[in-house]
Amino acid sequence: MSCPKAGLSDKTITIVGLGLMGGSLAAALASRRVCRQVLGVARRQEVVREALDRGIIDAGGIDVEDAVSRSQMVILATPPRIVLSQLGEIAPHQPKGSILMDLASTKAEIVRAMCHLPAHVHPIGGHPMCGKTLAGIHAADGQLFVGRNFVLTPLERTPADVIETARALAEAIGSVPYLMDAETHDRTVAWVSHLPHMVAAALIRAGMDGEKTEPDIWNLAASGFRDTTRLAASDLTMMLDIFFTNREALLHASRAFASQLGKMIQLLEAGDEAGLRALLSEVVDRRRKLG
Amino acid sequence: MSCPKAGLSDKTITIVGLGLMGGSLAAALASRRVCRQVLGVARRQEVVREALDRGIIDAGGIDVEDAVSRSQMVILATPPRIVLSQLGEIAPHQPKGSILMDLASTKAEIVRAMCHLPAHVHPIGGHPMCGKTLAGIHAADGQLFVGRNFVLTPLERTPADVIETARALAEAIGSVPYLMDAETHDRTVAWVSHLPHMVAAALIRAGMDGEKTEPDIWNLAASGFRDTTRLAASDLTMMLDIFFTNREALLHASRAFASQLGKMIQLLEAGDEAGLRALLSEVVDRRRKLG
Repeated sequence: MSCPKAGLSDKTITIVGLGLMGGSLAAALASRRVCRQVLGVARRQEVVREALDRGIIDAGGIDVEDAVSRSQMVILATPPRIVLSQLGEIAPHQPKGSILMDLASTKAEIVRAMCHLPAHVHPIGGHPMCGKTLAGIHAADGQLFVGRNFVLTPLERTPADVIETARALAEAIGSVPYLMDAETHDRTVAWVSHLPHMVAAALIRAGMDGEKTEPDIWNLAASGFRDTTRLAASDLTMMLDIFFTNREALLHASRAFASQLGKMIQLLEAGDEAGLRALLSEVVDRRRKLG
Repeated sequence: MSCPKAGLSDKTITIVGLGLMGGSLAAALASRRVCRQVLGVARRQEVVREALDRGIIDAGGIDVEDAVSRSQMVILATPPRIVLSQLGEIAPHQPKGSILMDLASTKAEIVRAMCHLPAHVHPIGGHPMCGKTLAGIHAADGQLFVGRNFVLTPLERTPADVIETARALAEAIGSVPYLMDAETHDRTVAWVSHLPHMVAAALIRAGMDGEKTEPDIWNLAASGFRDTTRLAASDLTMMLDIFFTNREALLHASRAFASQLGKMIQLLEAGDEAGLRALLSEVVDRRRKLG
């Protein structure tokens, strides 16, 4: 027993996946000298090369086992269903007492899978609530997490000092640790993240319908449309992974949304301006509170 | 006959309504010295005072008739239904041969009403395709129009030189004139502006449903949610005016949207990942083309 258990300064951290999220985390850790060493693993050597050239990892390669076996903490920064397949492959190669964390946008399925990991590894789920439309290491940004919530979803088996280490990591990169259980996380973000992805996509599909009779549609799409539909430019694999690993909660939120939209359509159809005004007035107040 | 008819440099322009749009237009015209004089009219003297203090109008007041009678061009920068009520009040006070333009977000009803204006006035509809969530003279910004489309919807009776003047005005403030007929404009923006307002509002309403069981919803609403719902913080009167002056086109677009969303829900429900992938793949491509 040397350092305090929650300390990050003595740890080698391996980040698996050097896309936007993994690359940004590496950059955030490296620039702040949070831990002893940051190792990066990607599927393609050229991505590792770029991360090395940019100085956002200390070392790295395409060999997961090698990096993992030398690390006290492993962070999976891959899409949800890749995380699900990597957990069981990676944990056996981790040293005793090391931490296995992920950054995926859905947490319940992953945390359920984490329950079955070997006892020598300490799993915890994570979800930094930030993003960009741009993907890949080129878009990596060490400031991405600053001021954002970093959701942590510990398991019953997760030791308190591991939760403290995860907390310390979130704080070290400028984000705000937000502890909650995985199911609550998934039901919550279904409303404020997954549903908006689906709605943005449906708006683009509607525009593709409209285009058939109104050829000027895309020319007249201004900043309001671009903002409302920005999430529809997200990475396709990530979107499908999110939808299919949080299906029930997303379906529930989607149906509630469809019903709310239906009410508004009915009020407009009926010419019920007072009704629509009352409804929209609450909406405007609620949205403005978000800032 | 002295100057070229399309010239703006010899004109006094009155802007009626000094909110975000009118204030921004005044600022754009004043800073570029586009015309001889910019007069501003608002309902409240303190708004006129602020416009004078900021130097975005040369003179102004709360007396519409006075300003209008001294101007060769009047631009109504008020919400759609206020424009409808102002047209008939203002035109009789305009000098012979002067121009009456508006900036409202819907054009067909306004252009229909413009048909009945006295013959000594030349009407033309306008809609600069830009905006901000912030409202009021405080948010006025002379750069608001730069690089944006400025839709112009002339009437059959609008003389060619008046169209040229309107074009010159749009170009003078840095925007791109975009001529189209009023009905086509309204049907087109129903898809890319009015429908997104409604959808953003329905997303907030859905969140208010979700909040009942998931109290962390608003804490976890990150930038993706904020962007997707930004239009729901728009001015309430303006939203209702838009909805009710473009009701049929908006209902048509809303139903198409609801049907597209319904398809996505069905695919997700059925676990048809290949179907959802094919649909979303087109969406991502289409959205990315918009930039």
